[in-house]
Amino acid sequence: MDVISIIRTKRDRGELSGEQIDWVIDAYTRGAVADEQMSALAMAILLNGMNRGEIARWTAAMIASGERMDFSSLARPTADKHSTGGVGDKITLPLAPLVAACGAAVPQLSGRGLGHTGGTLDKLESIPGWRALLSNEEMLNVLNDAGSVICAAGDGLAPADKKLYALRDVTGTVEAIPLIASSIMSKKIAEGTGSLVLDVKVGTGAFMKTLDDARELASTMVGLGTDHGVRTVALLTDMSTPLGLTAGNALEVRESVEVLAGGGPADVVDLTLALAREMLAAAGLPDADPAKALADGSAMDVWRRMIAAQGGDPDADLPVARETHVVTAPASGVLTRLDAYDVGVAAWRLGAGRARKEDPVQAGAGVSLHAKPGDSVVAGQPLLTLHTDTPERFEYALKSLEGAYDVAPAGTEFSARPIVLERVSA
Amino acid sequence: MDVISIIRTKRDRGELSGEQIDWVIDAYTRGAVADEQMSALAMAILLNGMNRGEIARWTAAMIASGERMDFSSLARPTADKHSTGGVGDKITLPLAPLVAACGAAVPQLSGRGLGHTGGTLDKLESIPGWRALLSNEEMLNVLNDAGSVICAAGDGLAPADKKLYALRDVTGTVEAIPLIASSIMSKKIAEGTGSLVLDVKVGTGAFMKTLDDARELASTMVGLGTDHGVRTVALLTDMSTPLGLTAGNALEVRESVEVLAGGGPADVVDLTLALAREMLAAAGLPDADPAKALADGSAMDVWRRMIAAQGGDPDADLPVARETHVVTAPASGVLTRLDAYDVGVAAWRLGAGRARKEDPVQAGAGVSLHAKPGDSVVAGQPLLTLHTDTPERFEYALKSLEGAYDVAPAGTEFSARPIVLERVSA
Repeated sequence: MDVISIIRTKRDRGELSGEQIDWVIDAYTRGAVADEQMSALAMAILLNGMNRGEIARWTAAMIASGERMDFSSLARPTADKHSTGGVGDKITLPLAPLVAACGAAVPQLSGRGLGHTGGTLDKLESIPGWRALLSNEEMLNVLNDAGSVICAAGDGLAPADKKLYALRDVTGTVEAIPLIASSIMSKKIAEGTGSLVLDVKVGTGAFMKTLDDARELASTMVGLGTDHGVRTVALLTDMSTPLGLTAGNALEVRESVEVLAGGGPADVVDLTLALAREMLAAAGLPDADPAKALADGSAMDVWRRMIAAQGGDPDADLPVARETHVVTAPASGVLTRLDAYDVGVAAWRLGAGRARKEDPVQAGAGVSLHAKPGDSVVAGQPLLTLHTDTPERFEYALKSLEGAYDVAPAGTEFSARPIVLERVSA
Repeated sequence: MDVISIIRTKRDRGELSGEQIDWVIDAYTRGAVADEQMSALAMAILLNGMNRGEIARWTAAMIASGERMDFSSLARPTADKHSTGGVGDKITLPLAPLVAACGAAVPQLSGRGLGHTGGTLDKLESIPGWRALLSNEEMLNVLNDAGSVICAAGDGLAPADKKLYALRDVTGTVEAIPLIASSIMSKKIAEGTGSLVLDVKVGTGAFMKTLDDARELASTMVGLGTDHGVRTVALLTDMSTPLGLTAGNALEVRESVEVLAGGGPADVVDLTLALAREMLAAAGLPDADPAKALADGSAMDVWRRMIAAQGGDPDADLPVARETHVVTAPASGVLTRLDAYDVGVAAWRLGAGRARKEDPVQAGAGVSLHAKPGDSVVAGQPLLTLHTDTPERFEYALKSLEGAYDVAPAGTEFSARPIVLERVSA
């Protein structure tokens, strides 16, 4: 085996053999294949693609590069969710305790934000005392005690993916469907969940800008999960406008708690319930009633136990940004568009996100929305509030909001996009 | 400027701006762009191409990365030749002194062999005492004294190319016409020659396997040279069968000396004269008569002065390999094919070439031919002789010669390919 002939095979639109894939992933993890060789191969994969069999083998090789977790000792069936990332996507926060309240065990390994999409761990870290990093034993204890756990993935799962993801991030090779699908699924399969629901975002604020790309990514991932014995379903959901009324860390925790208290914005509630029903069905609990668990406070109980079990104080006041700036409606009429990407970039520039992996985030920074597409607005009313501890960032954040929204004359027809666009199953 | 957006531009089939190209070449030379980023960009260029303007700017940026030489102090016009590399391609050896004997100054910066094609410096180093490495001052002295010089390129010329070439070699990104053209031409233009003749090889033993690819490479290079004020012409020449009757280091020096003595195989003589005429015309000496300079010994005189000026003994016995093995004709008839690539690989395996840049080569190793396509052969007569100091390599070398030749029944029609296939000028 030699890496140059493997690179050439894919460069010249050939199919990689199973042996070539196993060898190159293992050699890369060991350091016998250099970064500059793997990035050339990644670019060739991005431009020339991989077929179903190649993607399956690539994923299996990444799983084999590390350890696998095992939740078979738990009394409850396990259910997991993965989102491809969006603006204001706080769904994991209410969803994990909700599904646990309905009888499943929810081991939710999550990540940090990079770029314009926030990270679940960054959001939860705005709760005083809360810890993202747990040992495998601590994780199992929280899961047994609360029914759900949201924590950082350990270094032992799919180390090949960890190394390859960092490489793709700096070499312009992130946006390759085979590499995205195998990256997500190798971690989820190694994590050992019995069922998995994928929330594949579509729209300006998502990696996948078109329904076609999202459909391809979803069906690739559903196929990979199914082949590895994980009951896998995907929902394609709208990410043309931010989810809910907040984008930022503490801002989103506050909104999530509202949902767990039986309130919250309709789109967040609807998507949380839709994903909960899929997770419960995939976990073999089709008769559970997540709407009831939100209404009767049982989901909130799980949330409080889970936060406390990870050192957090569920009753603590959440951080608030020192400064705010209000953007007002330029005219009266109907808000017909509020762009998810632009709002995500604004929140990121205000300090909610990070430019480099090492950077800290501001817990209070972000954007809150006072209207959503379809709402009537009056000229001069607040449209958005920007939050930051570093007011010198307002100008830069406001730049990304130029052209981010449209207000049409009152009476203009507006048909809202449904939050769930399509469902993809095996 | 950031490298990821530059990579993405080319990945998504966009055109790189002049500023992007200048920045990325400079940053890569300085080490601010990492190898893994440049290799991803090189793969994107290989797969998505560059237009004429991008290639010109890329070449100019590589020239600007280092020093430029200046031969304007010489009394004679300068003429240079570059071959894209082939099997048995010893043409530089007789050609440089021949063109010098006709009145031009020939500063021939050459390279070492890598892979199945030999290197001019490796060949000359089989002459006892001869030195490839000269300072700029020594180089000018030899040029003034003998009229021609063949030596290693200094580190100061196009250092960006040096770094990029080494990277392409290990990342499967050698075979990109824009990168090949800019690599060759950046060195030749930085070298400061006034005129340049390109010998672009076509066939199994060449990088360019098809006439179309060779034509594209040639016209790209002719355009680049012309744009930089270098009078540039290209000949597309046949490399489906080895040039002459030898492939190897000392073996090829011996054959070159035969040509300088007025003998030698017809194809080597023909190509040497064709290239000499082009060089002399491009240098503004169209009335010179290279055939006469071969016949009257004046080219041989320059050769002897040039070799001696670089420490070599032109009268010394050349090294001979310790062991030989003869391959005989399997049948009587006409030799209709003798594959350049297979013979090149055999010579390389016998020790004439190197697997890694650091490896030594055997001066005496190689292959000599006893017949060329079109010749009649008798069953059992010698067809090839293999030479090596390490006879355990015979078996491996013979493997590459399985299927390397065809003998057809006597009387079979055979039409020889001309050595010069096409001429490309501005």
